[in-house]
Amino acid sequence: MSQSTTVTAAMLAIGDELLSGRTKDKNIGHLADLLTLSGIDLKEVRIVADEEDVIVEALNALRSRYDYVFTSGGIGPTHDDITADSVAKAFGLPCVYDPAAMTLLAEMYKRREMEFTEARQRMARMPQGATHIPNPVSTAPGFIVENVYVMAGVPQVFQAMVDNVLPMLRTGAKMLSRAIPCPYGEGDIGTLLAAIQKAHPDTSIGSYPKYDGQRFSTELIVRARETEPLYAAATAVEAMIVELTARKTATNPSPDA
Amino acid sequence: MSQSTTVTAAMLAIGDELLSGRTKDKNIGHLADLLTLSGIDLKEVRIVADEEDVIVEALNALRSRYDYVFTSGGIGPTHDDITADSVAKAFGLPCVYDPAAMTLLAEMYKRREMEFTEARQRMARMPQGATHIPNPVSTAPGFIVENVYVMAGVPQVFQAMVDNVLPMLRTGAKMLSRAIPCPYGEGDIGTLLAAIQKAHPDTSIGSYPKYDGQRFSTELIVRARETEPLYAAATAVEAMIVELTARKTATNPSPDA
Repeated sequence: MSQSTTVTAAMLAIGDELLSGRTKDKNIGHLADLLTLSGIDLKEVRIVADEEDVIVEALNALRSRYDYVFTSGGIGPTHDDITADSVAKAFGLPCVYDPAAMTLLAEMYKRREMEFTEARQRMARMPQGATHIPNPVSTAPGFIVENVYVMAGVPQVFQAMVDNVLPMLRTGAKMLSRAIPCPYGEGDIGTLLAAIQKAHPDTSIGSYPKYDGQRFSTELIVRARETEPLYAAATAVEAMIVELTARKTATNPSPDA
Repeated sequence: MSQSTTVTAAMLAIGDELLSGRTKDKNIGHLADLLTLSGIDLKEVRIVADEEDVIVEALNALRSRYDYVFTSGGIGPTHDDITADSVAKAFGLPCVYDPAAMTLLAEMYKRREMEFTEARQRMARMPQGATHIPNPVSTAPGFIVENVYVMAGVPQVFQAMVDNVLPMLRTGAKMLSRAIPCPYGEGDIGTLLAAIQKAHPDTSIGSYPKYDGQRFSTELIVRARETEPLYAAATAVEAMIVELTARKTATNPSPDA
C-alpha cells in the first residue's frame, strides 16, 4: 500500500475523573469506531489528568507524530477546565476570549433569559485564531488549532462535535476487515495462524481470545486495504479451521462413527 | 501532604483491537477503581498498537516516571502477541522460555489431555529472571520486571491477575472523596466553586457536568487525603448550593409565595 493512503490520528482524553475510575470513558471507543469507518488509523490514545504541564507535553508529543489529534474534556466553565489554556501553551499562542464565541454564547443565554456569568464566559476562551467546532447540543464551541481538534468530554456533546469534524478530515484508504469466528483457543491455532500471516504480508491478522468462563475460543480478524489480499488470507484462515475440525474429529471420533 | 504518602501508577493497554474500536476496553476503568481504593494514584493511561517499537518507547517513558506500570494484552500464544518480547527489549533483557512457566503449562495441558503446542509454549516466554503473576483462570502467568506488571488483556484474566498483584504493592494514603450532587450547571456555579477551591488548597474539587438531553446538572467531587480539609471544603460546597437555591427562589418566586 502506498504511504499516501494512510492517515493517522491520536486521541488525548483529559480528566481526573477518568483516572480515578469515577467516570468510565465512552468517547475513546466511539471515536475509534468512526475513524476506522472513515479510513483514518487511530494509532495511540492517552488519558491524562487535569494538569497543564502534563497536557502540554502529551499534546506536543502527539501532534508532531500523527496527522490528527482529537482531545476530549476540560473545556467547560469551571476552574478544573484548563484544556484551552493548555492547548494555547502547547502552540505558544495567547489564550483569549474569542469574539465570535462570546457573541454566540451571549445570544444563547439572552434567549434563555440566563445570566452570561464570568464562569460561562470562560467557555469562549480558546487559542487566538482558532477555528470553531460547532456544538449543536449546548452552543459552547470546540475548536481547531492546526491539526488538533479540541472537543467536550460529555459524551453527547463529544459525539455531536465529532459528527461536525469528520467531514472536514482528509481520509485514507479504508481498512477492510473480515471477522471469522473460530471455535478453537489460540493455543490450537497459533502456529498455523503465524504461517498464514507470513504468507499474506499485505494483510494484518488479529487474534482475539474469548473466554466464556469454561473454555477459550477466538475471533480472528483479517484486515487489508485491498479486497484481493483480504479474501486470499480470509480463505486460508477458513481452510485452517476446517482442517483443524477434521483433525479433531479423526482423533476423537464420535461413538457411532 | 508529605511526598512519601503518594504512590503513582500508569497503565499501558496494548492491542490493535482497542484502537480499531472492535474491542471496547474494560480493563482501564477496572484498574482505575481498584487503584483508587488502594491509595495508588493512576496518573496516565496509554493505549498503543501491537508494534514493538511503540510498546518499548511507551513502556520506557512510563516506567521511569511512575512508581508502577501495569500493562494489559499481548501475552497470548499467537503471532500478534509481542508484549513479552517488547518488555524484554525495553529492559535490555533476553526473552526466554521461563522454565517454571514451561513446567506449569506442560502439567496443565497434560492434565487436560491437550497437546502442549509450539504456540502454547510461547505463553511461557518472558524476560529472563521475571517474577510470575499467578493466573487462576487459564494458568499462563503474567510477569513482573522491576516496577512493570504485565497482565493479560482478556478481562476475566486481567482482573484475576490484578487481584493477585494488588496485595504486593506499596500503597499511599488513600484519597478520600465526597460526592455532592448539584442541580445547577457549571455556568451557574463556576465562579463560586473556583473561590471555594482557592480557599481549600489541600483539597481537589472536581466538577463533572451531566446532560440529560434537556439540561445540565453537575456532580461535584471533593477529594483530600485527610478528613478535616475534606469536610471543610464539602461543607462550603453544600452551603454554595443552598445559597444558590435561595437566590433562585428569590428571583423567581413561586406564584403562591
